[in-house]
Amino acid sequence: MKHLRICFVGDSFVNGTGDPYCLGWAGRICAAAQQEGHEITYYNLGIRRQTSLEIAQRWQAEVLQRLPADCDGRLVFSFGVNDTVYEDGRPRVAPRESLQHAREMLQRAQALRPTLMVGPPPMPEDEQNQRIAWLSARFDQLCQELAIPYLATFEPLLRVEAWKSEALANDGAHPRAHGYSAFAQLVQGWPAWQAWFD
Amino acid sequence: MKHLRICFVGDSFVNGTGDPYCLGWAGRICAAAQQEGHEITYYNLGIRRQTSLEIAQRWQAEVLQRLPADCDGRLVFSFGVNDTVYEDGRPRVAPRESLQHAREMLQRAQALRPTLMVGPPPMPEDEQNQRIAWLSARFDQLCQELAIPYLATFEPLLRVEAWKSEALANDGAHPRAHGYSAFAQLVQGWPAWQAWFD
Repeated sequence: MKHLRICFVGDSFVNGTGDPYCLGWAGRICAAAQQEGHEITYYNLGIRRQTSLEIAQRWQAEVLQRLPADCDGRLVFSFGVNDTVYEDGRPRVAPRESLQHAREMLQRAQALRPTLMVGPPPMPEDEQNQRIAWLSARFDQLCQELAIPYLATFEPLLRVEAWKSEALANDGAHPRAHGYSAFAQLVQGWPAWQAWFD
Repeated sequence: MKHLRICFVGDSFVNGTGDPYCLGWAGRICAAAQQEGHEITYYNLGIRRQTSLEIAQRWQAEVLQRLPADCDGRLVFSFGVNDTVYEDGRPRVAPRESLQHAREMLQRAQALRPTLMVGPPPMPEDEQNQRIAWLSARFDQLCQELAIPYLATFEPLLRVEAWKSEALANDGAHPRAHGYSAFAQLVQGWPAWQAWFD
């Protein structure tokens, strides 16, 4: 049985915003591992509205507080949707900068601890989704280059009806329990996640 | 219906360490409020092992990241047990310093946002419990002085059999689901917490 301290670093989808159970996908997969007998210390560092730039500026201080050197610490990143939001006619973070922030964070992260990256999910809006899909594909390439496992969630969640319908019935962005459960199932079935518990 | 962003600042009991559901007491009370129709953004900033000194040094930066000025942000603090742990024949934080850290944090906090304080729970060890009980009584006095609502959990959880038995069967400190549920019920029934949702 493993005893891991896992920091989930990212945005509102990492936080689980909108979930009536206050778990989101990150809480669900940790609870499942815990109930299988693994001891997980679950640190959720998802913050609403944050772009890759904002996350890049604060993740390391927060992670270092939570992962003392003598503990088996792990890192899971997931961000990107907020970068693709248009404000004043342009994305909050330009695509090239999103990739630069991701590269810097992931390189530092993998020097610290075993690291995984989970891709950004779709929104209920087709134009924004084109930008998210593009970014997800680039994150995938980047992670291949860095030898960090990457899980694309965009395409699979586009096929989950509840992901979109719950978001539309809620605040236009964040799903409820079915959406987050579907997201959690993707990560739970991911060999790179499962390998942490072998 | 309220739309609150709540930061829970503290130690491993705030984190919910040991809970098979990865909620702890903080997650349980937020999930209950969410299921009653309130929109809660739940930020758990509990960190294992941290004393009042360590929490004092990082809480404000973490809270400011999570509570933008235009949101209805709230703060709940809970710490103290780690201060009372003996190392090299003395407590990790001297009682007078614990009170000083608490005073500084709570005064800053209440200048920022509506603030509550939840007292430290008991451990399965009588000598340490004398120190926790003393500290809890002093935190109570301090909060009265600052006009911050304070919930003592020490006495009530001493009477909850599962709180101690689960801790002993686990790691000697942290309970499982029944213990955290009992803790959550105390906070959920607390008028100062309920008043946030009136």
